[in-house]
Formats: sequence, structure tokens, C-alpha cells
Amino acid sequence: MDVFEAIATTRAMRRLDAGRPVSDADVLKVVEAATKAPTGGNSQPVRWMVVRDPDKRRRLGEIYQACWAPVHDFYATQADGSPDVARMLRSADHLGEHMGDAPVLLLPCSRGQVGQAEASVFPAVQNLFLAARALGLGTTLTTVHRLQEGEVRAVLGIPDDVTTWAMIPMGYPTGRWAEAPRRPVAEVTYWDTWKEPPPSRG
Amino acid sequence: MDVFEAIATTRAMRRLDAGRPVSDADVLKVVEAATKAPTGGNSQPVRWMVVRDPDKRRRLGEIYQACWAPVHDFYATQADGSPDVARMLRSADHLGEHMGDAPVLLLPCSRGQVGQAEASVFPAVQNLFLAARALGLGTTLTTVHRLQEGEVRAVLGIPDDVTTWAMIPMGYPTGRWAEAPRRPVAEVTYWDTWKEPPPSRG
Repeated sequence: MDVFEAIATTRAMRRLDAGRPVSDADVLKVVEAATKAPTGGNSQPVRWMVVRDPDKRRRLGEIYQACWAPVHDFYATQADGSPDVARMLRSADHLGEHMGDAPVLLLPCSRGQVGQAEASVFPAVQNLFLAARALGLGTTLTTVHRLQEGEVRAVLGIPDDVTTWAMIPMGYPTGRWAEAPRRPVAEVTYWDTWKEPPPSRG
Repeated sequence: MDVFEAIATTRAMRRLDAGRPVSDADVLKVVEAATKAPTGGNSQPVRWMVVRDPDKRRRLGEIYQACWAPVHDFYATQADGSPDVARMLRSADHLGEHMGDAPVLLLPCSRGQVGQAEASVFPAVQNLFLAARALGLGTTLTTVHRLQEGEVRAVLGIPDDVTTWAMIPMGYPTGRWAEAPRRPVAEVTYWDTWKEPPPSRG
């Protein structure tokens, strides 16, 4: 798949086919893609927790659901009649109930201070998403489990000084691939000075 | 370019051709790729500062060089005879002297707390790197300018409550594209339990 097509059509896929297995080889292929991303001083701090065990997925799903509830309420107060937000909330609520049903859960983990290590973590997450997309596998980036991170660590035997940066469900999506709605590039680009618009594309 | 090839061969390109211009269309194309990345609640908080003006690039280059000096010293004490670290340091020292010569400097900026907003910033940075790679443009992720972030804001007119997450030089590289050295995937992947190795591939 062309890299621009992968970039354009990789979006949050929150409805996954719980009954369609994902091969170990594909899991390792997407994690390998993640390892290619840059890290500060090439320190490569991330360790990838791959969760396949059904009981552990179920327990992580319960933790995720408990963490999602207050976040749902926050977004619901913000929705304010927006159909886009309402659609996202329905999809996110589905994930809240079904995180543990995803065939694979992936958690990038590392030591390193909150507020400093992220630049060595999240580029890798995007590589993983794009590689998954190219294999037909859906993913989505979630971080709300960190409200109960100690319980997540307990399920997986992760040391207390290790941060679990994200919880990423992966599986074959039940929905279709498409471009996500985003602001036009000219609206989010400033040229030489804050708020100065870019030249129009010629 | 195939997405797996782009992922495998995107590495820090710190030696850029100062004399070969980069088109505005290509700048906007890589920023557009960045906008496709996920953000928390699709909030799309990032604004992309594109710096083309030679005087502003020179001033940012001076700030970067001042910030790089102590970081160089830190890595130098860690190098401990490692040829990999020594090679990286030579390349990073070159960038320390020539940041302002890059045809384009890109700074992803947003409001949002340090330690929380990064998950909505750095996936976009990786999209930008991969799109640049596909266009033959080199980039590298740097964050040390934040040691003097107030001075960076002053050059570009950025408000005090906006974080400048990275300073990314972009241009045609003088070196060759190749895979960066990374640990094997089996060394950085744990299966169901911390430190438990993955199944062997194949």
C-alpha cells in the first residue's frame, strides 16, 4: 500500500471483529514497524506488551470500561448537539463495552518521565497504526486506562516504575476504511509568524 | 512508495542540502499528512509553524545551538567508546551548527498540558516524517530547543500558553537513505506477561 494512502485512510477503528483471529506473524510485523520510529538518542525505550490471553483481555476490558465512564460523561457535556461528536461517542461507547473482545491488545510501555518520554513513544504508535492499516487491521489510540494504571500493571506483571502509555485494540474492523474528517491544512498551518496563513497551493 | 519501505527507511537525516530549495507545495503536502493522525477526541490541537524566512531560521538556529551544547556534553559522557553513539554525536553536532541552514523548520505547536497533549502531537510528527521520506525530504525530531522555549516563541510571535513540541529541520539530505539500527522485535516484545518473550516467527 502507498504510504500516502495508508496515512489518509488510517483512522480510529473502534468496532472490531472479535471472532476473526489475527496471526502472531502480523502482530510481530506491526510491532517491528513500530520499532523503526525515532527515539531520543536512539534509546529505544519502548517495550510492547502484546495481550492475547482471553482472561487478561477480559480483565483489561473491565478496567478500561470503568475508566471510560467518566470520560464519556465529559464528552457528552461537550457534544452540544454536534452530530460528529455524537457519532464518535457512540463508537467510543462501543469500544468501552468491548475493549476486552479485541483479538489483540497492545500496550507500549517504558520507563521515563511523563512529559519527557512521549516523543520516543508516540511516533512508534503511529508507525504501528499505519502498518496495521496496510495489513487490513484496525486500531485506535486510547489512554484513559491510565486512570487505573496500577490495576493494569497488576494484570500484566508490569513493574511500578514503568508507564503504560496507551491501550490499543487491534483486529479486523467490521466497518469500512475511509478518510477521517480533519481541518484543511491551510487552517492549521502558520507561515513564519503565528497566525500568518500559508501561501495558497498553486 | 510502499508504506513498509517508508517506515523502514525513515531515519534521522541531520545533514541537509542548504542550497536546494523545497517547494511550498511539498511543505503543505507533508503537513497535510500530519493532520491525518489521531488526536484525543479528534480535537486536532496542533498548529504547524513553518519557518522559511532566512533571518528567523538563523535566529532559531542560534537558539538551538545554545540548547544543544549541554545535551552534547551529556551524550559525550555516555558514549563510553561506543562507535554508534560517537557517530550519532558527530551527526547531531553538525545539526547543532547548521539547524538554521535547513531550508524549512517545522514546529508543531499546541495548547494543552505537558504530559497529556503529546499523544495528540507525536503521531502527527511521524506521519509528517513518512510523507517527507516519500518525497525524498529528510527530517529529524529534536526537542532540545525547549530549554529556551521563551526565546523561540519570541522569534515567531507564539503566545506564552502555547507549547512548541519539537523543532524539525527539513530539506533534501546529503546522505543516503538506509535502515536505522534498531533492536530486534523479539527483544522488545512481551507476550501476555512482562518479560515473557513472543512466539518465534514463522
